Amino acid sequence: MTYCLAIAVEQGLVFASDSRTHAGVDQVSIYSKMHKYARAGERNLVVLSAGNLATTQGVVRRLDRDWFDGVEPSLATAPTLEDAAEYLGDVSVALQRRSVEQAAQHSGLAVEATFIIGGQVKGQAPGIYLVYPQGNFITASPLHPFLQIGEAKYGKPILDRIVSRQLPLDRAATCALISIDSTMRSNLSVGPPVELLSYERDSLEPGYYHAFEAQDPYFASLRDAWRDGLQQLFDQLPAPPLDPASSTTR
Amino acid sequence: MTYCLAIAVEQGLVFASDSRTHAGVDQVSIYSKMHKYARAGERNLVVLSAGNLATTQGVVRRLDRDWFDGVEPSLATAPTLEDAAEYLGDVSVALQRRSVEQAAQHSGLAVEATFIIGGQVKGQAPGIYLVYPQGNFITASPLHPFLQIGEAKYGKPILDRIVSRQLPLDRAATCALISIDSTMRSNLSVGPPVELLSYERDSLEPGYYHAFEAQDPYFASLRDAWRDGLQQLFDQLPAPPLDPASSTTR
Repeated sequence: MTYCLAIAVEQGLVFASDSRTHAGVDQVSIYSKMHKYARAGERNLVVLSAGNLATTQGVVRRLDRDWFDGVEPSLATAPTLEDAAEYLGDVSVALQRRSVEQAAQHSGLAVEATFIIGGQVKGQAPGIYLVYPQGNFITASPLHPFLQIGEAKYGKPILDRIVSRQLPLDRAATCALISIDSTMRSNLSVGPPVELLSYERDSLEPGYYHAFEAQDPYFASLRDAWRDGLQQLFDQLPAPPLDPASSTTR
Repeated sequence: MTYCLAIAVEQGLVFASDSRTHAGVDQVSIYSKMHKYARAGERNLVVLSAGNLATTQGVVRRLDRDWFDGVEPSLATAPTLEDAAEYLGDVSVALQRRSVEQAAQHSGLAVEATFIIGGQVKGQAPGIYLVYPQGNFITASPLHPFLQIGEAKYGKPILDRIVSRQLPLDRAATCALISIDSTMRSNLSVGPPVELLSYERDSLEPGYYHAFEAQDPYFASLRDAWRDGLQQLFDQLPAPPLDPASSTTR
């Protein structure tokens, strides 16, 4: 599996993704799921991918080729983020359809893929979009300013508690890393390195990018502080009475 | 959906369950998912249920009837916890099969149900078992001393971090409540009241039971302490640099 997320706060955008892929338990690999398309001063787009690896790689190859060849439409020319999301959805659906149709027989294999695309085009507001396997897409809302794809449930509680539009950009990045760490702790199919990209609103620059290995000093200190802090916090919580005499009956 | 869990520590057992059921979004109800079978000094068993409500209610009706009518096998006479788990699995499979076979046509409706059964029979060690819809079952392990059914992912990270066999019984109960609270916070299909039962090893008594409504003073204070503590802990975490100059390239 995979876990990727994007957060849209007032100061900008944060993208984060794990790097583990697997087909069954005996084909586990490391692949980047974060793809960057930047033209300084004009546009900065990031694509996160989850799902069938042949589909996601095929889609990214096509996005790259269209970007560099200057064909239309492409991420280089899409007038708005919505147009970019629609183009990404079209590429994804076409590739999935091709995989199903050209197969010699119906294999039942799921070729679906899900994407997050976000960033900013000059003159427009920054934004994040989730593109479904069907090619349609949604955006985040001011009250729910994040999107997740892949193994999203383990890392959702901390996002639900912490993330708001007003959260500073560096705290949003911290929360994204904690959300991925919690997921890696509970699910073997999500693993390092963890890629992080933060984009400052209206900068139209590629922003900050780093791939955190498990032993990265900052990432390790963050994980340790969170683990020890949770333990201490838990130890201070009030326990229920557990006195049979105070039991209620149903 | 549903979220139920059981934890087996050295001092005893903890069972916890939410109470929300729904068929679609327009049939949301409150049902207990915790079913208690106690004979003081002889045995104390608890059953938690998740899945199709007609199946789980049918299974519990049958467990109740067999218990009171003194027929064999039943939870009153199962010589061991494993026998009790096997009996529960047989009852569940028979009921599911009946629902599918007597239907006038194939509806595609899932009639599956999953259960946790645990407790202690006199002269034996206490234990917890997860009974699959297929009627087979597993037990917890010393290194993974908890079992979950239903919407299990949101509440798993805190269990993974906190729960060990050595955890005191009241702390295990605290952790179970936190795990359910995190799930309720992130998933609308899991809701109060939260039922909690703690059983002290070798007591062979019903133990402590309480159904916590959302506004229960202890449960509210626990939720508030956890929420505020998480926020404070998060605020103290080191943030990543986010300096584009310190970016790495891939």
